[in-house]
Amino acid sequence: MVELTRVGVLTSGGDAPGMNAAIRAVVRGCIYYGIEPVAIYEGYKGLIDNNMRAVNARSVANIINQGGTFLKSSRCPEFLTTEARGKAYDNAKAAKLDGLIVIGGDGSFTGAMKLDEERGLPCIGVPSTIDNDIYGTDYTIGYDTALNTVVEAIDKIRDTATSHNRLFFIEVMGRDVGFIALNAGIAAGAEEILIPEQKNNVDNLMNSLERSGRAGKTSSIIVVAEGDKSGGIFELARTVEKKFPDYEAKVTVLGHIQRGGKPSCFDRVLASRLGLASIEALMKGEHSIMVGIHDQEVVEIPLKQAVSQKKVIDKYLIKLAEIVTV
Amino acid sequence: MVELTRVGVLTSGGDAPGMNAAIRAVVRGCIYYGIEPVAIYEGYKGLIDNNMRAVNARSVANIINQGGTFLKSSRCPEFLTTEARGKAYDNAKAAKLDGLIVIGGDGSFTGAMKLDEERGLPCIGVPSTIDNDIYGTDYTIGYDTALNTVVEAIDKIRDTATSHNRLFFIEVMGRDVGFIALNAGIAAGAEEILIPEQKNNVDNLMNSLERSGRAGKTSSIIVVAEGDKSGGIFELARTVEKKFPDYEAKVTVLGHIQRGGKPSCFDRVLASRLGLASIEALMKGEHSIMVGIHDQEVVEIPLKQAVSQKKVIDKYLIKLAEIVTV
Amino acid sequence: MVELTRVGVLTSGGDAPGMNAAIRAVVRGCIYYGIEPVAIYEGYKGLIDNNMRAVNARSVANIINQGGTFLKSSRCPEFLTTEARGKAYDNAKAAKLDGLIVIGGDGSFTGAMKLDEERGLPCIGVPSTIDNDIYGTDYTIGYDTALNTVVEAIDKIRDTATSHNRLFFIEVMGRDVGFIALNAGIAAGAEEILIPEQKNNVDNLMNSLERSGRAGKTSSIIVVAEGDKSGGIFELARTVEKKFPDYEAKVTVLGHIQRGGKPSCFDRVLASRLGLASIEALMKGEHSIMVGIHDQEVVEIPLKQAVSQKKVIDKYLIKLAEIVTV
Amino acid sequence: MVELTRVGVLTSGGDAPGMNAAIRAVVRGCIYYGIEPVAIYEGYKGLIDNNMRAVNARSVANIINQGGTFLKSSRCPEFLTTEARGKAYDNAKAAKLDGLIVIGGDGSFTGAMKLDEERGLPCIGVPSTIDNDIYGTDYTIGYDTALNTVVEAIDKIRDTATSHNRLFFIEVMGRDVGFIALNAGIAAGAEEILIPEQKNNVDNLMNSLERSGRAGKTSSIIVVAEGDKSGGIFELARTVEKKFPDYEAKVTVLGHIQRGGKPSCFDRVLASRLGLASIEALMKGEHSIMVGIHDQEVVEIPLKQAVSQKKVIDKYLIKLAEIVTV
Repeated sequence: MVELTRVGVLTSGGDAPGMNAAIRAVVRGCIYYGIEPVAIYEGYKGLIDNNMRAVNARSVANIINQGGTFLKSSRCPEFLTTEARGKAYDNAKAAKLDGLIVIGGDGSFTGAMKLDEERGLPCIGVPSTIDNDIYGTDYTIGYDTALNTVVEAIDKIRDTATSHNRLFFIEVMGRDVGFIALNAGIAAGAEEILIPEQKNNVDNLMNSLERSGRAGKTSSIIVVAEGDKSGGIFELARTVEKKFPDYEAKVTVLGHIQRGGKPSCFDRVLASRLGLASIEALMKGEHSIMVGIHDQEVVEIPLKQAVSQKKVIDKYLIKLAEIVTV
Repeated sequence: MVELTRVGVLTSGGDAPGMNAAIRAVVRGCIYYGIEPVAIYEGYKGLIDNNMRAVNARSVANIINQGGTFLKSSRCPEFLTTEARGKAYDNAKAAKLDGLIVIGGDGSFTGAMKLDEERGLPCIGVPSTIDNDIYGTDYTIGYDTALNTVVEAIDKIRDTATSHNRLFFIEVMGRDVGFIALNAGIAAGAEEILIPEQKNNVDNLMNSLERSGRAGKTSSIIVVAEGDKSGGIFELARTVEKKFPDYEAKVTVLGHIQRGGKPSCFDRVLASRLGLASIEALMKGEHSIMVGIHDQEVVEIPLKQAVSQKKVIDKYLIKLAEIVTV
Repeated sequence: MVELTRVGVLTSGGDAPGMNAAIRAVVRGCIYYGIEPVAIYEGYKGLIDNNMRAVNARSVANIINQGGTFLKSSRCPEFLTTEARGKAYDNAKAAKLDGLIVIGGDGSFTGAMKLDEERGLPCIGVPSTIDNDIYGTDYTIGYDTALNTVVEAIDKIRDTATSHNRLFFIEVMGRDVGFIALNAGIAAGAEEILIPEQKNNVDNLMNSLERSGRAGKTSSIIVVAEGDKSGGIFELARTVEKKFPDYEAKVTVLGHIQRGGKPSCFDRVLASRLGLASIEALMKGEHSIMVGIHDQEVVEIPLKQAVSQKKVIDKYLIKLAEIVTV
Repeated sequence: MVELTRVGVLTSGGDAPGMNAAIRAVVRGCIYYGIEPVAIYEGYKGLIDNNMRAVNARSVANIINQGGTFLKSSRCPEFLTTEARGKAYDNAKAAKLDGLIVIGGDGSFTGAMKLDEERGLPCIGVPSTIDNDIYGTDYTIGYDTALNTVVEAIDKIRDTATSHNRLFFIEVMGRDVGFIALNAGIAAGAEEILIPEQKNNVDNLMNSLERSGRAGKTSSIIVVAEGDKSGGIFELARTVEKKFPDYEAKVTVLGHIQRGGKPSCFDRVLASRLGLASIEALMKGEHSIMVGIHDQEVVEIPLKQAVSQKKVIDKYLIKLAEIVTV
């Protein structure tokens, strides 16, 4: 067992529901094991700017059910430079931090890995992003909540989809991966799901709409995975309207709604487990690893692997989507 | 008291949460008073196409809590012609309908008024639209639910708005009226609210953002009332980003989510009251009127007045918004 | 216009969703009009214990969407004594308070009225209780949210009520008044609603269940208005099971769930209006009054009247409940 | 591959959110593979009473997001007899069913196992119960939704728990197992969690409350796993109030609320997978098995094992609860 006196914790990158639950578990895990927890604000920026302070068990009371992150998060391109990481390290040392817990996604993990390798500050990653696109963990913190948010939104659209000749386009997050679109699409009974993993999405969509039209189906919900600032879905909608002039297309862009909301039970329990596990890993002398969940057990994955390998979508789900949605 | 044997009911125009509760009250009100209720499907189109059938108390079981309308709704431009209305009237007569309850907005009421005036079929309007833009009633069915839907969505965005230098643009419904934008904006604590009733919205927004920037405020939520297919908000977002290059703009277009969802308690009780009141009005010999709610009492307004006069927004709320959001 | 330098605000009695929105409007209304707002913690207890501090616009950021009250609330039987009120007054004077805003129910208003009358400290009441039992205002802050909470709960029970021979008993708040039970019962389509305003509830229930049984109805939802600690509903359930051995009774006691949750849009706008109006009333020289809402306008009612008169339930709703639920 | 012509599907026992999604996947899976799906109503009772009919893809449209089960469910003690099972088998044969999908819990699986063994009708179980107490599957359908329902309820109580000296007792389902209580308790940040798996619950509670009192904690949330008709929590509350007269105890009994509500995304995807898998298992010639989920993959477990072995709670979660809740 490694003797630890003080450990820092920060949230980095896009925020995700459940980050607060993870922070709480880190802080209370520290206290349980006799370690002083130090909160670092605004992600790596706070480490560079020395924006940190000691916290206690009360500091994290009543946050487990709050969306967002009370430590605030930020993207910090500056941290890509060796100089910035040096400054961060100096502040960490001055604050007598024996380790650092980084709650975030793979961009954040790359930073943690470099800080650990270059300077020897033991870093542990806690996977937290709504996109679920981190290798080595079955689930990331925030993903389950985002799925429920998307499904609830599509359910509402389903309520109004009884009118004739309507196509409802719904843009959800996932520029590179279709986890949200595919799972939420299945759960919401969407007629069409367009994900980055599949080619010829638009052609397939056109063919499928033609078939639906012939089959007498007059209203469809189409889920499209896109980034969080494109609005390109309006163009897609116009293209489809042009080809099928009998249809009226209606567009919803969910945007940052998907990052918010009270975390689901699943995300809170996952975040609590991984938050505590990150401290226990540090105590065992682990570093430059991510704690994840696999087969309902906590697992440890080298950050190097977590950031370099790609999590792939379950092909069976694509087939499932085709079978249950007719 | 007028002797009534059979009464038809339909939903018309854009659907709204609570329409099912209104249908249920119409049907059960009929049965209570010994009248046979007849369901007409797909709005005026169903009347023209003779798509109707007798229903009973069980037909409307378990629908009070459902969004949408189980009678389906449609916009029916054909009904603007005298010919179509003639056909509709012939079907109504053949079905021995002594009256017609039209659940919808002002477009639907214009049709009802003409049918009543031209042919003498007694028609009663039940105001139901999420926009709340019908003169003569304090509230329309569906408005309260839509407000809660919008507020819940903005709440989620608020969760993630802790990061620096972000502007969140949220487009809500209301091409001509700002009821949803103003009320939901106040309730969600939006920093800026752009409504059609106010001129120079964009200039005001720019000035206000400049002031906020100087005051050190680094993140704002901006609610914009727009139609349900524009997506013009993306252009607005780009214009603002150009002027304030330090900010990153994030866009959400709520779209038809606002029409769905389980109706709120308020909308269900309102719909139940107005549905029953529409039958009671018919029994009293009223026709070509709308039943509305004013000062917590049911009121009757000539359809002519309901469709020709404009409901105006409460100026005090605009002032309130400025004071409580700083 | 009265010149005001500092004004205190407190929440008192049982908490209600929307209290935070009201506090926020009081604080920001003060600032808008150049008055210093002072937060008093834990209701009258805080005034007696001198637990208060100056706040600013930022102090109330991000609370409009939170349930509960960040000022904390308490019941303070001590405040019934002249001595305690004397001490409270002395503290108010020492803090140079020119007026006091009391957000709460009629118990709290009695205290405010006495403090105002005995000592001349201008007090304004803001009606806030989930029970809606305050004379002089159409709605109290928190009532609309509580209704939605109850209706959502009953909706879930409705989902499972498809099985045969089940009676679902749901206890809601309202020891003396049936506003919640009646309105939520109508909105949820409850088969039976027991409210304190009606006699012979249990006999009526037995007769009605007998009729339902003969009519072939095999499952019913029964809403019962009771206090928040009785659990007497279990006894009622057992009595009914004894009389109808074919039925299985299932009990839900909602309890304090009804006081929590994010406030609805309606409650947030209402709270914002009344919070601001309370400051404007003080500026006009009003005192010992409550600000309420009537016909969508702010009204002012003497506290004396608000606490001594009884708000009565709308009899039409009782009839409505009988007609639409068959 | 076994040639299948017709397959029956039923839901049995206590209903659970997601059952509809499972039925839908069974029906559409059948159609995809050229099998005729037959819906059996009211569980085994419908099989005995010959209450069944052929369905198609449209029959299960728009049910994926509905709580409850549109096939209705029932407990059917009669099915425990060989005679009743014989009658059920005869009806199945007369209807030319080549197999039967039973969606339910372990009581229902025992019936399926016997029907399969005694008569040779191939039966496949789909685990569906909010209690998550079925051996051989990581999750049962409905469990995730029930957890979210409980957590949302406790969150509301947390909002009001700012007052002093309050103990909130919340009774959740789980007479024999503490899965719901433990996981929801962790997620909601409950101060105390009483589960059947732990002895001396009440003594521990008393000691813990004493410690909390000494530590200055003045309000606690206590989650208690109990059956769905006990109300015994009121007695517990009174016992505690007697020992700690300074505290006021408030009780909530969630009851059947926990069985309802729209299924979560997780439950809908799980139900869709297992529903389809049940048909695919039947096609492979499997019978008297349950399809479950383990390590994110579909697994097949003999019904015999599923009903005879006991799923045990993860001890690590008990430790986690102690560490993160202080």
